[in-house]
Amino acid sequence: MQIRLATRPDNAAILSIVAPVLAAGTTYVLPQDWSDTQVLGYWFAPSHTVYVAEENGKILGTYYLMANQQGNGAHVANCGYITAADAQGKGIARQMCEHSLAEASQRGFGAMQFNHVVSSNERAVALWQKLGFNIVGTLPRAFHHPQLGYVDSFVMFKTL
Amino acid sequence: MQIRLATRPDNAAILSIVAPVLAAGTTYVLPQDWSDTQVLGYWFAPSHTVYVAEENGKILGTYYLMANQQGNGAHVANCGYITAADAQGKGIARQMCEHSLAEASQRGFGAMQFNHVVSSNERAVALWQKLGFNIVGTLPRAFHHPQLGYVDSFVMFKTL
Repeated sequence: MQIRLATRPDNAAILSIVAPVLAAGTTYVLPQDWSDTQVLGYWFAPSHTVYVAEENGKILGTYYLMANQQGNGAHVANCGYITAADAQGKGIARQMCEHSLAEASQRGFGAMQFNHVVSSNERAVALWQKLGFNIVGTLPRAFHHPQLGYVDSFVMFKTL
Repeated sequence: MQIRLATRPDNAAILSIVAPVLAAGTTYVLPQDWSDTQVLGYWFAPSHTVYVAEENGKILGTYYLMANQQGNGAHVANCGYITAADAQGKGIARQMCEHSLAEASQRGFGAMQFNHVVSSNERAVALWQKLGFNIVGTLPRAFHHPQLGYVDSFVMFKTL
């Protein structure tokens, strides 16, 4: 598997990976009813650098890397990762996160922060912890999960 | 003193309050080198509702209210407050924050979150705590203070 910068021909594959996750509304604090154009517009926002994980010509996951804040907070990076539904359990998210940490470090970021990791997304929380992220904050009932109701979200942070 | 929605004739006063604070770069994670147009564009972003604190026809402070996140995080509000340099110590920030909590509650928000309260801004931290906010997270060295170097920032949260 290789992880590389996304290019325009990847758009359809990226959309097929990202759109269902946003529509499900269980992990991202983004609208569930976005059109395809809005989904791609968000994922490819000017502030985002977008990567894809590819194996044998198939896109298995995608992530974006950005500065989490502007100005005097711009040395902290932020990422969002999504693995294709049919590629779960193969370590794609782990490889994308490891790639992003190396990329962020190379680009001069001093840390990475996730602002809103939904506590019920236990697999993600555990993975980020394995990769060296600490839970540095708990946002009480800050996420309204479509099935579970109000649940906490975590702020996670790793110094690079 | 009254606190009311900002209108276009308030722009010059708002700019004179906000621009120096952003240029100083000690409290907001926003660029220090923004033009006047960029400063006003940010303060009046489409997602922001902007208020001013006015006394005897003079604008003494301004704040914005917004949803801190979209989608299933949109029940948590966020605000930014700035008091005019020559109106410090008169309780303007406290009155603006109290006003914003009432407004947020009335608009149906269930909580308010500040994402990046710079720890060296001790007066603000103490004031938000007095008004019922808790420090729910500490972002290690997440702010590069122009004079103090890297300092922690706090995530502060209050349920409404």
